[in-house]
Amino acid sequence: MITHENFATEPWQLRETALDLDVLAQSESVFALSNGLLGWRGNLDEGEPHGLPGCYLNGVYETHPLPYAEAGYGYPESGQTAINVTDGKVIRLLVDDHPFDLRYGELLSHERVLDYRSGVLSRSAEWSTPSGRTVRLTSHRIVSLAQRAVAAISYTVEAVNGPATVAVQSELVANEQLPAASGDPRMAAAIDSALLPEEHYAHGTRLRLVHCTATSGQRVAVAADHIVEGPAGTAWAAESEPDVARLTVTATLEPGQRLELVKFVTYGWSAQRSLPAVRDQVEGGLAGARTTGWQGLLDAQRACLDEFWACADVEVEGDEEVQQAVRFALFHLYQAAARNERRAIPAKGLTGTGYDGHAFWDTESFVLPVLTHTAPYTVASALAWRHSTLASALERAGQLGLGGAAFPWRTINGAECSGYWPAGTVAFHVNADIAAAVERYVFATDDREFYRGPGLDLLVHTARLWRSLGHFDADGVFHIDGVTGPDEYSAIARDNLYTNAMARRNLLAAADAVSRHPDRAPDLGVSAEEIADWRNTAAQMAIPYNQRLQVHEQAAGFTDQEPWDFDATSEDQYPLLLHFPYFDLYRKQVVKQADLVLAMFTCPDEFTAEEKVRNFAYYEPLTVRDSSLSACCQAVLAAETGHLRLAWAYTREAALMDLDDLEHNTRDGLHMASLAGTWIALVQGLGGLRRFRPVPAARLQDQPSGGPQAEEPEAPVRFAPRLPTSLTRLAFNVRVRERLIRVDIGQATARYTLMSGGPVTVMHHGAPVGLTVGAPTDLSIPPAPDSPEPRQPKGRAPGT
Amino acid sequence: MITHENFATEPWQLRETALDLDVLAQSESVFALSNGLLGWRGNLDEGEPHGLPGCYLNGVYETHPLPYAEAGYGYPESGQTAINVTDGKVIRLLVDDHPFDLRYGELLSHERVLDYRSGVLSRSAEWSTPSGRTVRLTSHRIVSLAQRAVAAISYTVEAVNGPATVAVQSELVANEQLPAASGDPRMAAAIDSALLPEEHYAHGTRLRLVHCTATSGQRVAVAADHIVEGPAGTAWAAESEPDVARLTVTATLEPGQRLELVKFVTYGWSAQRSLPAVRDQVEGGLAGARTTGWQGLLDAQRACLDEFWACADVEVEGDEEVQQAVRFALFHLYQAAARNERRAIPAKGLTGTGYDGHAFWDTESFVLPVLTHTAPYTVASALAWRHSTLASALERAGQLGLGGAAFPWRTINGAECSGYWPAGTVAFHVNADIAAAVERYVFATDDREFYRGPGLDLLVHTARLWRSLGHFDADGVFHIDGVTGPDEYSAIARDNLYTNAMARRNLLAAADAVSRHPDRAPDLGVSAEEIADWRNTAAQMAIPYNQRLQVHEQAAGFTDQEPWDFDATSEDQYPLLLHFPYFDLYRKQVVKQADLVLAMFTCPDEFTAEEKVRNFAYYEPLTVRDSSLSACCQAVLAAETGHLRLAWAYTREAALMDLDDLEHNTRDGLHMASLAGTWIALVQGLGGLRRFRPVPAARLQDQPSGGPQAEEPEAPVRFAPRLPTSLTRLAFNVRVRERLIRVDIGQATARYTLMSGGPVTVMHHGAPVGLTVGAPTDLSIPPAPDSPEPRQPKGRAPGT
Repeated sequence: MITHENFATEPWQLRETALDLDVLAQSESVFALSNGLLGWRGNLDEGEPHGLPGCYLNGVYETHPLPYAEAGYGYPESGQTAINVTDGKVIRLLVDDHPFDLRYGELLSHERVLDYRSGVLSRSAEWSTPSGRTVRLTSHRIVSLAQRAVAAISYTVEAVNGPATVAVQSELVANEQLPAASGDPRMAAAIDSALLPEEHYAHGTRLRLVHCTATSGQRVAVAADHIVEGPAGTAWAAESEPDVARLTVTATLEPGQRLELVKFVTYGWSAQRSLPAVRDQVEGGLAGARTTGWQGLLDAQRACLDEFWACADVEVEGDEEVQQAVRFALFHLYQAAARNERRAIPAKGLTGTGYDGHAFWDTESFVLPVLTHTAPYTVASALAWRHSTLASALERAGQLGLGGAAFPWRTINGAECSGYWPAGTVAFHVNADIAAAVERYVFATDDREFYRGPGLDLLVHTARLWRSLGHFDADGVFHIDGVTGPDEYSAIARDNLYTNAMARRNLLAAADAVSRHPDRAPDLGVSAEEIADWRNTAAQMAIPYNQRLQVHEQAAGFTDQEPWDFDATSEDQYPLLLHFPYFDLYRKQVVKQADLVLAMFTCPDEFTAEEKVRNFAYYEPLTVRDSSLSACCQAVLAAETGHLRLAWAYTREAALMDLDDLEHNTRDGLHMASLAGTWIALVQGLGGLRRFRPVPAARLQDQPSGGPQAEEPEAPVRFAPRLPTSLTRLAFNVRVRERLIRVDIGQATARYTLMSGGPVTVMHHGAPVGLTVGAPTDLSIPPAPDSPEPRQPKGRAPGT
Repeated sequence: MITHENFATEPWQLRETALDLDVLAQSESVFALSNGLLGWRGNLDEGEPHGLPGCYLNGVYETHPLPYAEAGYGYPESGQTAINVTDGKVIRLLVDDHPFDLRYGELLSHERVLDYRSGVLSRSAEWSTPSGRTVRLTSHRIVSLAQRAVAAISYTVEAVNGPATVAVQSELVANEQLPAASGDPRMAAAIDSALLPEEHYAHGTRLRLVHCTATSGQRVAVAADHIVEGPAGTAWAAESEPDVARLTVTATLEPGQRLELVKFVTYGWSAQRSLPAVRDQVEGGLAGARTTGWQGLLDAQRACLDEFWACADVEVEGDEEVQQAVRFALFHLYQAAARNERRAIPAKGLTGTGYDGHAFWDTESFVLPVLTHTAPYTVASALAWRHSTLASALERAGQLGLGGAAFPWRTINGAECSGYWPAGTVAFHVNADIAAAVERYVFATDDREFYRGPGLDLLVHTARLWRSLGHFDADGVFHIDGVTGPDEYSAIARDNLYTNAMARRNLLAAADAVSRHPDRAPDLGVSAEEIADWRNTAAQMAIPYNQRLQVHEQAAGFTDQEPWDFDATSEDQYPLLLHFPYFDLYRKQVVKQADLVLAMFTCPDEFTAEEKVRNFAYYEPLTVRDSSLSACCQAVLAAETGHLRLAWAYTREAALMDLDDLEHNTRDGLHMASLAGTWIALVQGLGGLRRFRPVPAARLQDQPSGGPQAEEPEAPVRFAPRLPTSLTRLAFNVRVRERLIRVDIGQATARYTLMSGGPVTVMHHGAPVGLTVGAPTDLSIPPAPDSPEPRQPKGRAPGT
């Protein structure tokens, strides 16, 4: 979309200079505002035209039956879909009785700007009615990062070419009509009129609606108050009905005169609390917002973002688009997580209802790594959400006949919502991904309270899952059969390498964690024998390898499968899943998204440098990137194996996924994982950031300690920075163990600066570098190793 | 059910001596009448009480959407369900205004008898009204085997203990209320009020209803006429409404006086022909039935069955239950196939709506082998049905990206109706099963016209499927990945041995068939290169074998999987599919039904005798027999490997599946495959019948000619008879290549008699025996080889 002529490339803003209704739905996603609890899509103030109207509250959903042509034991019976709650952002306008609607009259100018530092979405427009009266419209909108349940709009209309009689209708609207559902399985289940009215109220400048969902029993209250300023004669009246509350302000404006409206909106929601309690909650929030005032909200918004950017900003010189994109990405990641408060971070954040508003492994595997090193306080909250669903996961494991916890493939409330078990129930790797996120967070922050509490619980119960899921063969090798790894074009495989390697990490992390907290072992029922069994299981984990080809296998037998016929596949047959049956994809060598390549990223010490080169060269020609999760992982391995041109092409793809709408579904919401992938590609790809492990190039057989370390590590992280020729500079900060480390990379040298915290050693291309505050260290960058750049399947090279 | 005290064990009849409403639904299945086109369940004449009212016309179904929680490419969107068509068998009775209903008044006696030689279901009852008036009721019911669209009922009511005013209401009833659907996936989709009324008519003693299905567009017409005899004063009147047509006959009967009614019913149905055409069709059929008359219909019925039994009867001495059961089985198989006329033989025949009235691989793999050797003229018709669906199968293969034809896993009209692809779409073995049925039929009958026509088409298009489905590995071995074999507790496997071995047979049969009909090669587009490629592919087919264990693998890697924990599985957890998730069943060594064991039966020459012993011993302890298809196959291999006690236990299980309701779902219809399995277990198990191949103990590597032979074979069949100690005699006939061979087996000797046809050589325990008409040959039976009897999983031994 950034390539669209209406969008300007600016470092700290996303600016749309004219309105194109063809990309309206996408623009609503990229202009979405959120604080992690409350999300408003970037719909036009006047509500229509729209692509997808959307106001979301994290955790507010409706349930619906999951149908099956043929039922089976253990299939989830009930699905969950995030619903569009009462819309608090609608402000309609009539000018001389003409409804302000961009499809009628004449739009003289229209600009929208999302500013990443102020956190404000601004809009300005000049519009003439069909009868020729022109008004100038300005609005500013925020979803407060500081006040969890508050959003606000400043709305101004000014007469331009003659006196205009205007009516401004500021509304709360429930059960907005939604577009008809499509057949694309990635879209949301359609739930019409999800909200049952409970109460409506209008008095003075105040409005309130309370609704309840029909089957999930969640109460949603919305209240609004207004400050009105206008010329003499300005009048207003409030009224309400079950599904709408409205403040109508009327005025006659002489040219140059303005009518100004500030609208404060608060939300309250609960599955447990009473109508009076939730009503009081929104009224209290509203009082707080009025007290803070519009300018106060703006100031607090900027303060939050200043603090975020001070650590999180990434500077890219040599590619203005990627510079803009990485800030766009970090801004939206921060929005998705800032006030998360023990709720899920859905795959689309709160920017749309794609994937039904569900959270997947994306959160722990893509979003949390970025936040761990940029805004770590949000990570504990996100993992606390997983921990809060532990009871569901234990129950699900029991239903499946397994030990420990089986976390869901997709969910809002913790219960499994996947209706296709070969790519849901058996994608057990989500459990190891959660464990790895725990381990990573604990290591990076040394949050000991989290570690001994929810962290330990999560590590132990996921380790138990792996122990019960696999079995030892006659030779004592531990196998995990019948699982699906990250690559969704394979399923129900034996010894998926990513799964096994991550399960191994999980088992060792649990063993270490219990060993470090022996006082908690009794209440978890962990014995010394169980710890020894976890370590032994980890040591004996099968890692499939094809000796003849000298490459690791994505899963046992994968490299013996028939190769996909890429030459016979035309470009319009991608994504393959919409044009070929699963069975055919599953039984052939074709990779939807990084799987073995992801394992080389998440378990870097299980592979030698040579193996990484060979493996990457083998899997690149098989990987079609039909998932937005893939490009960033491929960027990381391309960088590590010295293919910097390719790494940059993948980085750009990850970075521009939503801005350029590369998968044609940004309309349904932003891809949080791909946004995170922008940072991953830059910092972990070009910057080479990895956790440093003291055991050199450990192989699985060597059994390094994989658990989080409570003691101070020798060197917590390593870097291996290297830029593609197209970049002149890349700079970023990394938070790790109470330090803020700045890395500033040029073509020839990298400068390491310890911005805060005690002295620390990091690794630069394998060599230790001691850092102290105030003493930047410049180090030269060795040339990249030389090997032929791998090819991609026909038509699937990045940037083509 | 035969163990129920109300059922007597008689050799040529199924007799129920009292009515037990608890087993009413099962009784309706076992007393069902059918001719393969028209089926009437054994519902009581008066319609109620009932378990499941049922009148079925082969091929009359309604469509319904197949829902998916997550859709996927190539998933069938529309399902088909056989519907209960207009009920022509209802004859209600009022005695002094009391409705005759067995739940009220007093039932003094009640007997029903199904006679396998007359083909008549008879009923007699004495019943007293709540006010004490007693009547005697007698009815006889047939579904004509000679007149395809005709059924008839002779109904008599007699006053016993005083004058009785009776009203007999003979009806045609459409859209009968059906019991609510259960959650069991093996049951039918519920379709209420499937029939839309088009015309109703009543005049004199004639009734007619015409309906049309709502979405499948099938027109169903039913007509009835009556002959009424009663005392002076007997009167009648006919009337009709859209969903009911009724002849009401009234009379006052003095004790000993009778009212007699003969009801002729005809059905006509078409998806293409007009209302007048179908109306005329049923009226014409009715005229034919009246002309034949009740006695004429009875005579023709017996003549058909006399002809059938002359060849098909099996005599069992030493077990009265199995004697009855095998005749019960053969009777129902004949009913399912007699007037098939190029329609499917559903898994339940026309005895109920279990499995939605769909046909599966059961037909070709279980039912047709029996009919091939007992009533071969029905087999050509059943295979002609498959051939008639070839266009659908070619289209389906194209949709799946495959060559050749992909026949559906379950269907009525030829389109795939399976909504669960891991056990539907990828159970490709159905195609090889169809090819094997063609090959078997052609060999057994030498039907050259069929061979060069539909037979050749079926062989060629299925061979092409295999060639496109598999691939050659680097060593030149041909693998078929991602398929599901017969065992439904495994799925999506590599090199399922049964599938591969059957595919190999298929490829060779196609090569032979085209070689024998070179003139047809051009219109099928078969080149010499393609034939050579089929032969080479067959020769290189992978056959998984575990060298360490010295057993064949059900699929590659199967024997490395974790064994199922049978000790931890309680008896009430069977069938496992209702208590454990598919993923867990799939990844462990647990077998629902004979798979590798079935391969040893259908491809007997691919295994040495020693391998059969070892394989059978390995798979028996893993096989839980949660499918009714399993016991007969296990019986065959138990017999072949010398375990005659075990063979007999499995034979009894197959034989009593429906009579004893072993799977608790006989209410939904009879298991045609298990009925066929009774014959298979006796004739192919204890009798050892196999097709003889001149190449001794051919292994896959040796590549014997697998195709049907148009020339006279040296010896067409072989036997290896051997009885368990509990039997004194087993005698049966086998039709093969224009001969009728009788085999009469005792404990020590077997007598071979050529009943008709030219001289022929058969094999007896490996030795050739020349047979000519009129010269019976007695041969001694060698003792069974001795090896320990294999064990079954805990609680799953047959007969326990």
